[in-house]
Amino acid sequence: MAICNEIKPGKTFIGKLKFGGDLLGELTCVCEQNDIRLGRLEALGAVQKARIAFYDQQARKYNFLEINKPLEITKLTGNISLRDGKPMVHAHITLSDSQGNAFGGHLSDGTIVFTCEFIINSYDGPDHVREYDAQTGLPLWKI
Amino acid sequence: MAICNEIKPGKTFIGKLKFGGDLLGELTCVCEQNDIRLGRLEALGAVQKARIAFYDQQARKYNFLEINKPLEITKLTGNISLRDGKPMVHAHITLSDSQGNAFGGHLSDGTIVFTCEFIINSYDGPDHVREYDAQTGLPLWKI
Amino acid sequence: MAICNEIKPGKTFIGKLKFGGDLLGELTCVCEQNDIRLGRLEALGAVQKARIAFYDQQARKYNFLEINKPLEITKLTGNISLRDGKPMVHAHITLSDSQGNAFGGHLSDGTIVFTCEFIINSYDGPDHVREYDAQTGLPLWKI
Repeated sequence: MAICNEIKPGKTFIGKLKFGGDLLGELTCVCEQNDIRLGRLEALGAVQKARIAFYDQQARKYNFLEINKPLEITKLTGNISLRDGKPMVHAHITLSDSQGNAFGGHLSDGTIVFTCEFIINSYDGPDHVREYDAQTGLPLWKI
Repeated sequence: MAICNEIKPGKTFIGKLKFGGDLLGELTCVCEQNDIRLGRLEALGAVQKARIAFYDQQARKYNFLEINKPLEITKLTGNISLRDGKPMVHAHITLSDSQGNAFGGHLSDGTIVFTCEFIINSYDGPDHVREYDAQTGLPLWKI
Repeated sequence: MAICNEIKPGKTFIGKLKFGGDLLGELTCVCEQNDIRLGRLEALGAVQKARIAFYDQQARKYNFLEINKPLEITKLTGNISLRDGKPMVHAHITLSDSQGNAFGGHLSDGTIVFTCEFIINSYDGPDHVREYDAQTGLPLWKI
């Protein structure tokens, strides 16, 4: 069973991130500056290096993986909701290397922008607040 | 040449799927329950295991592949249209494992949710009905 | 720091590409025919073969990679803006092979459609024009 809410379109933004910034941090900043409490985002571009996470479903913790080389962002997809009263970007990323091989995971801080073009759709609707979920150990929406 | 139709935005939904459900089946249920005949969807999260398909373009048939381990959903993307009078979700999925390696294919039943956050945009427009296409052997839109 | 603009939703299109066409070329045609100057697009489907690029951040040039076999399009994501006064589709693609392994990169001409279903959202807003960016060597938005 799914739990879902109908929401209304809010503002839409298109833009780019500057060379050398932290990918997740900069996207979070955009959301904070534009007061986006609920939304979705997508991006493409390239990174100088990546730091992604894989959630260990048994151990209930994230393991982090660093890929210390330039990569294309073949897709960054995420949503924006609230955690501890602030906008939180939850994003997953797919990357590819010089041989075309693809990698991916949960986007973590430490992923450094080479270039990035993003689109953010904000929504008007009930707050979606992340709280600890006992079954998965993750901060999921309390809806 | 492309064939395309202009459509109008309909309702938008955001939600989550429950632990242990069938990813494709649950998304299809959401579409049925909300009477979505045309739309797009996207999701991220994690699965307990995955079952994806690759279409053999020569033999004109899907081959199924099971990945029996936990994976991140780095991206699920799909559209919603009609087949045999009912909403059909056509989705492709990109997944990643504990080493960050990415996998992907046509989302099939048997992919089990660990956690999943989705957004669905429904559209108002002409019905897009899937019918057998002789050139590819696939159920494509008759438009 | 990010630079971004608020934009307004324009027309939405859904459609399919014909067997045997050039994926990037056909999507660009759709944008030209519908006078889309700013937008986003997404697609899924399959290709007969792919030609993708990886940007060498040191050498400041794209290296091209051909994958001469059928692949699923697990995700094509892109934006539409202007270059030299014409709509330019900038798209990245994630693909998967018969073993479920994923590949990806910057979508280049020479990627041949088996089947492709796309959605395009056009936007009303300030022109986003690509111009040479000295820091990256890429045609980025002058915003």
